[in-house]
This record gives sequence, structure tokens and C-alpha cells, in this order.
Amino acid sequence: MEKPLILVTNDDGITAPGLRMLISIMKKIGDVVVVAPDSPQSGMGHAITLDTALFSKKMKIDLDSDNIDEYSCSGTPADCVKLALQELLPRRPDICVSGINHGSNSSINVIYSGTMSAAVEAGIEGIPAIGFSLCDYNWEADFTQAQDYIYTIVTQALENGIPKGTVLNVNIPKLLKKEIKGIKVCRQAKANWKEKFDKRTNPMGKDYYWLTGEFELLDKGEDTDEWALANGYISVVPTQFDLTAHHVIQELNTWDF
Amino acid sequence: MEKPLILVTNDDGITAPGLRMLISIMKKIGDVVVVAPDSPQSGMGHAITLDTALFSKKMKIDLDSDNIDEYSCSGTPADCVKLALQELLPRRPDICVSGINHGSNSSINVIYSGTMSAAVEAGIEGIPAIGFSLCDYNWEADFTQAQDYIYTIVTQALENGIPKGTVLNVNIPKLLKKEIKGIKVCRQAKANWKEKFDKRTNPMGKDYYWLTGEFELLDKGEDTDEWALANGYISVVPTQFDLTAHHVIQELNTWDF
Repeated sequence: MEKPLILVTNDDGITAPGLRMLISIMKKIGDVVVVAPDSPQSGMGHAITLDTALFSKKMKIDLDSDNIDEYSCSGTPADCVKLALQELLPRRPDICVSGINHGSNSSINVIYSGTMSAAVEAGIEGIPAIGFSLCDYNWEADFTQAQDYIYTIVTQALENGIPKGTVLNVNIPKLLKKEIKGIKVCRQAKANWKEKFDKRTNPMGKDYYWLTGEFELLDKGEDTDEWALANGYISVVPTQFDLTAHHVIQELNTWDF
Repeated sequence: MEKPLILVTNDDGITAPGLRMLISIMKKIGDVVVVAPDSPQSGMGHAITLDTALFSKKMKIDLDSDNIDEYSCSGTPADCVKLALQELLPRRPDICVSGINHGSNSSINVIYSGTMSAAVEAGIEGIPAIGFSLCDYNWEADFTQAQDYIYTIVTQALENGIPKGTVLNVNIPKLLKKEIKGIKVCRQAKANWKEKFDKRTNPMGKDYYWLTGEFELLDKGEDTDEWALANGYISVVPTQFDLTAHHVIQELNTWDF
């Protein structure tokens, strides 16, 4: 049987340790092509590049690695997927995996996530797609603990197919391997960020702001990704790109237009 | 009664004619504060600025305008809303309106839309929010035809409240006023972009790509925003930021984890 073709991308950039770990796991499953941003793209949401041209370069980051094709791209994660599908891949991939992100993309973070935007972009094109994130922002984080789980999730996705119109948002708790209790399918927890801006003045007397904030969980449900992560599970949230709030259409039809 | 406080923003930048039109309509409804990007931010999706500081400047674009406060911001549309809420507004706004975008944000375009990301950001903070877009990319487009409809939608939203967890995505067809048949509440049509990359070589011999593409409607439903727009209606899609595909959780629970 032909090996599956796996597109690997991320938002932390082509040199990120999380991407390297994901490549090494995917190599056990299929043929891997990497198309990833040439610089970090965290918090890029579903941005695409409309006003500037995109540059892409074939490269080899890991000199010991087997014969896999790697390309950097000057654009966003969504751009990487578009360019991969249209220009760089030898054929349509069987699956697209994005990550492993250095930091959480659970609950409301999915909205801001470049990692997930790459997966969603593939999903829009009808390609099974999964975003992986480790709840640890450290660049030297330990990505080894979830290897077997990631292997399982990707092989299950290839075997079962991911339901149409859906991509998977997988978050891994910052725990030792022996502490991880398993995988839980969840819903996205209600949460937001309580922003605080740190206002400063530059040497020319101009004010500027650094965005900081605290995560605020607004959801006590035990079926959420936040609950799963806090209780030692890897969370899997099916994530859709039909954003319609179908349940409120009826209510809006009572408005006096 | 106190007049409502209205936060106006967009993604085309603080000088855009569509923003100017939206300000002029909102001035009839309440007290207006403008916080908008200092440069165009189209296609920014829900990007936020994490790695650089934000600059903001109080300014006056329209010298004839009444006494309204306007601020430019060096960040994305989502940044503008965060900065407005935390730093610039005198109090929590009663509503946030974004636009009028120069170009469509119907169907799958909502995913890439900076206009809608501003509205969604306000929605996450629990503030009623609406994104407005005109299906005409021309910078000199005629924004007058939909004035009365926009007025109606915003006043209805203030009166009825927008259902929790939802923001409105309003698209206006490129038609004369007399040709517009009314307002339709819709769902987001299934569609995608068939990308084509225009590959070129720069004077230094380096390849680069321009993203181009064709919109591909994959939905024949007569309850969609694309149908409404093609048939002379203004489309209103309730848009949510809980991205969970609740209907597939059961199926995923049959996977062999």
C-alpha cells in the first residue's frame, strides 16, 4: 500500500523544536513534506498575505534527517498551506498536521491561533487536518511525553477519516508521560483574556503599549478542553469553520427589519 | 436617556471611506469613539500583536466632523478593540461596529476577515458587535445605498440585544438603493477559494509568488448569505466563536484512543 503523504506545518517557524518533534513522529506514519513559516507567526489567527508577494525556499534544517522535503515560506501559516497545496506538494496530501505549538491553543485561544489556522485552511480544502499544541510556552519544552498519543491520533484520523467540515484541535497538558491519563474528546471551554496593557514612553516621548493579560476561565463544565487538561488528559476538540450560530437565526428573524 | 457609546473600528485603516460612512451613520445613534488601524489590515483574520509594542495616536481625520474622539493604532483590528476597551474608551461601549469593509466578508471570507475579527473580539468581551461589509472592493465604492439599513440593524441590535456568544456578519450587495430588496437572516454558505499562485522571478533570480484565486460557491441552499446577496438582499449571519463541532463529538468518541 502507498504510504500516506503528510503535510507538516506550524506557526512557530520552521526551526521550532515542536515542529521537529512532529516531523519525527510523522516519519513513522508516512511520507512527510514540511512547509512552514520562515519566522514565528504566533497569534496570527487566520491571517493571509494579500498585499505582498510570498517567498519560499527549499531547505534542510536537520542534516541528519532522511530524505524529506522541507520548504520555508515568508507568509502566515494559512499561506503555507495554500502554497503547499497549489505549488509545492507532489500530490494532494492525505492529512495535514500543524504544530506542535509551543503553548496552549485550548478554549478561546483557538481563535488567535496560527497553528489552528493552518489546520483550518487544510480543512476548508477538504483535507483531514489536526493542530497539536503543548501547554508549555518554553522554547526548550519537553515534547517527548505525548509522542505515542500523537501517533495514535493521526493514525486513527487516517483510518476513520475526520468528519467533513471539521478539524481537530489537540492540546497536551504540561505533564510527565506517566502522569497523562489519556485522551478526552471535548468541547471548547468558554473563556477570555483579561487584557492589561503595560503603557510606556519611548526615548522620543511617544507612548506605546505592551499587550499582557490573564486567562479567565468562564466555564465550570467537565466536558471542556480546560477541564480535561487540568485533570491530566489530552484534549481533542472537533473544530468547525461554519461559524453560523444556527440556533439564533429564529430569534433574529423576530427583529423589526 | 444617556446616548449609547459606540466603538467604531475597521480593517481598511482609519482613513478608509467605508469607515467614514459608518461613523456618519453612527453619529445619528450615539456617542462615537473611533479606534482603527493606522494602515490597511485586510486578510488579517483574528491576528493579534504579541511580539511588538502597539502605538496609538489621537487624531482628527475629518476636520469638519463634530467632537468625536479618534485614535489610530499600529496593530490589527483585534488589537484595536482590545486597546479601546482597556485604555482608550471612557466606559464600556454599548456596541461595537466594524467596517464598512471594502469588499465581501460573506461565506468562507469571514474566516480571513479583519473586519469580523474586530467584531468577534468585542463579542468575546461580551459587547454586542456587528461587522459591515460592502461587496465592492473599489476604494471609491458607493457606500450611501445601505445607510438606512445599517441604521436599522444597529438600532435593532441596541433595542433587542444580540444573543450571547454571537456577533452579526452583515454583507451589503453592490446595488443601487432602489435595487436592494431588504434584509435576510442567513447561514454562512459553504464555499472556498480556488487558489492560483502567480509565480515570478525577481531581478536577483529569486522566485516569488502572488496569491490569486477564484471564489468557488459549493452551496445551492437558498438560506445562505451568498444566495441572499445574489438575489438583492442584505445578508445578516449570526456568527459564533464557540468553534466546537458539537455534532461530531459522539462520532469521535468511537475512535480507538
